[in-house]
Amino acid sequence: MSENNLVISIDAMGGDHSPMVVIEGLSLAQKRNPDIRFLVYGDETKINQEMDKFPALREVCQIFHTEEFVHNEDKPSHVIRNRATSMYQAVEAVKKGEAQAVVSAGNTGALMAISKMVLKTIHKIHRPAIISMMPRQNGRYVMLDLGANTECNGINLAEFAIMGNIFAKHALGLESPRVALMNIGAEEMKGKEEIHNAAHIIKNSNLNLNFIGYIEPHEIPKDKADVVVADGFSGNIALKSVEGTTHLILRIIKQSVKESFLAKLGIPFMLGAMRKLKKTMDPRLYNGAMFVGLNGLSVKSHGGTDAFGFSIAIENAARLIRKDFVGTIRRELENIDLDELSQEACYEVY
Amino acid sequence: MSENNLVISIDAMGGDHSPMVVIEGLSLAQKRNPDIRFLVYGDETKINQEMDKFPALREVCQIFHTEEFVHNEDKPSHVIRNRATSMYQAVEAVKKGEAQAVVSAGNTGALMAISKMVLKTIHKIHRPAIISMMPRQNGRYVMLDLGANTECNGINLAEFAIMGNIFAKHALGLESPRVALMNIGAEEMKGKEEIHNAAHIIKNSNLNLNFIGYIEPHEIPKDKADVVVADGFSGNIALKSVEGTTHLILRIIKQSVKESFLAKLGIPFMLGAMRKLKKTMDPRLYNGAMFVGLNGLSVKSHGGTDAFGFSIAIENAARLIRKDFVGTIRRELENIDLDELSQEACYEVY
Repeated sequence: MSENNLVISIDAMGGDHSPMVVIEGLSLAQKRNPDIRFLVYGDETKINQEMDKFPALREVCQIFHTEEFVHNEDKPSHVIRNRATSMYQAVEAVKKGEAQAVVSAGNTGALMAISKMVLKTIHKIHRPAIISMMPRQNGRYVMLDLGANTECNGINLAEFAIMGNIFAKHALGLESPRVALMNIGAEEMKGKEEIHNAAHIIKNSNLNLNFIGYIEPHEIPKDKADVVVADGFSGNIALKSVEGTTHLILRIIKQSVKESFLAKLGIPFMLGAMRKLKKTMDPRLYNGAMFVGLNGLSVKSHGGTDAFGFSIAIENAARLIRKDFVGTIRRELENIDLDELSQEACYEVY
Repeated sequence: MSENNLVISIDAMGGDHSPMVVIEGLSLAQKRNPDIRFLVYGDETKINQEMDKFPALREVCQIFHTEEFVHNEDKPSHVIRNRATSMYQAVEAVKKGEAQAVVSAGNTGALMAISKMVLKTIHKIHRPAIISMMPRQNGRYVMLDLGANTECNGINLAEFAIMGNIFAKHALGLESPRVALMNIGAEEMKGKEEIHNAAHIIKNSNLNLNFIGYIEPHEIPKDKADVVVADGFSGNIALKSVEGTTHLILRIIKQSVKESFLAKLGIPFMLGAMRKLKKTMDPRLYNGAMFVGLNGLSVKSHGGTDAFGFSIAIENAARLIRKDFVGTIRRELENIDLDELSQEACYEVY
């Protein structure tokens, strides 16, 4: 067993092709990050079978057998009552301090529910959120909430702004990320009341945010903001619209090339350009959505990803552990009283 | 003056390059639709100057001089008080029965406000909505509301479903359009209460809709639904996310090709395939968002479109006039009492 002190717990049974994809993903991540150690939860026989293919990986893994697993159709209210699942055990390892982050490709609602119940929300944060990196011109931006909270008030959104700001500093390496609220217009009174309230709270606070106001979704990919804040419903709509459109366009390109003899002849010339497109838009490169606002890092890998995508989720978790992401949020929140600020905001508005 | 009885009134002063783009757009539309007559409102001198380039167009146009215009920064509350603008006059022509539709490339909020005040909402419809066609695999779908109503209740959404259904029949030529509510999950209890209420109302009504349930945004381009119903905030977020992603991907492709000598050599082979992509995604082909739910057709062209795009907005209006879109909505609503249905729905839910 290695003495690495960067430890990540793994739910080996989540996702479409587990534990195969998960174990291969760990192996890829381990090659690029030899300092990570893994606590692997799930069906020992199946895990061992896969791990036989990667002897170097076995060196940095400790396997914990569980009889039970969370299934895709399991309800969150149901899974939080069963501590015997691989997902629950993996999350609990973070709670116990045995691991600094958990990664699972299982059921999102279940992972969110277990993570919230086991890790608990950070003091002063009202609602945890789901955050992820997304592609844009010349780089990446981060967006939250991507689906944890269907309805949000101004304070929730302001808290997302604080957490998104720290996330962008740590994950994108930015000094002073540009923070924006997603809205359907740039004018002050466009959109919903909670967005206006959030803007007011952020502007009138000492949050030390580089707040640039509202951003409309078509402006987001143009390198105008680094952190895009939205309620979980709108954020999820935006995320899935980007996903659907990307898929549609790539499909049309593929089909058109397939149908044209001339285009097929052109493929060798275009490989480099298409590789660049893939390198920007490949969803695997953005894999690993995080639940932020909890006392511990919980990372959701896409259920349908491959080993490479899973390894990216691992690396995203490792990057934030190295920067002490959760600790930074806790420290920055110590001096902030958003509730007080929001009462002031409401007072001024009405 | 021609004796055509399909008449469209035009606000010649809206949009980024008016009246130039507008007049050239009319000329393009007129060549393809010789049965349309135009009532053109705006600065007579400027309009005449542009129209000198298109003698055939002049034959089917009647010009009405106005001294005033709606500007991009004008507030809706302000523009509805000034009846002297080209936009107001053009909308009023529909009200007076002189035209069957109005098309403007001006300020969206202003056109919506004037259209609502002058044309009035159809009896039994609570809220008009903005609808447009959008690209998807193997064709098009329609989506509403794209931004008229930030907050909606279940009845509003059910009314959008009724209007979207008729729109899809008329504009896409479908017998039984598949109608879906946009949501962040396919499961019954996912998302917002108003969406659940709308689903309940639609399912338990005699609306005669081919209702297929919820649809998530990434599934929309996959040819699964023909009518996508959303509140104006979410619909606008989805629309602009599609727009931003399309722009991002096309930009990456262009840039990659520009930077690669090899890719440049491949361009001739790829022209056909790229043309097909453009033919599907070109926003000009989807130009002309309509305000539905009013006693008359009001069509908003994109402010930055070119003459071809403007001509498409004209044709979209003409298609709906020929099918008596507004009359069909009125007739179908006669036998429906959504308010009664919604009370029943609430009663059953709680």
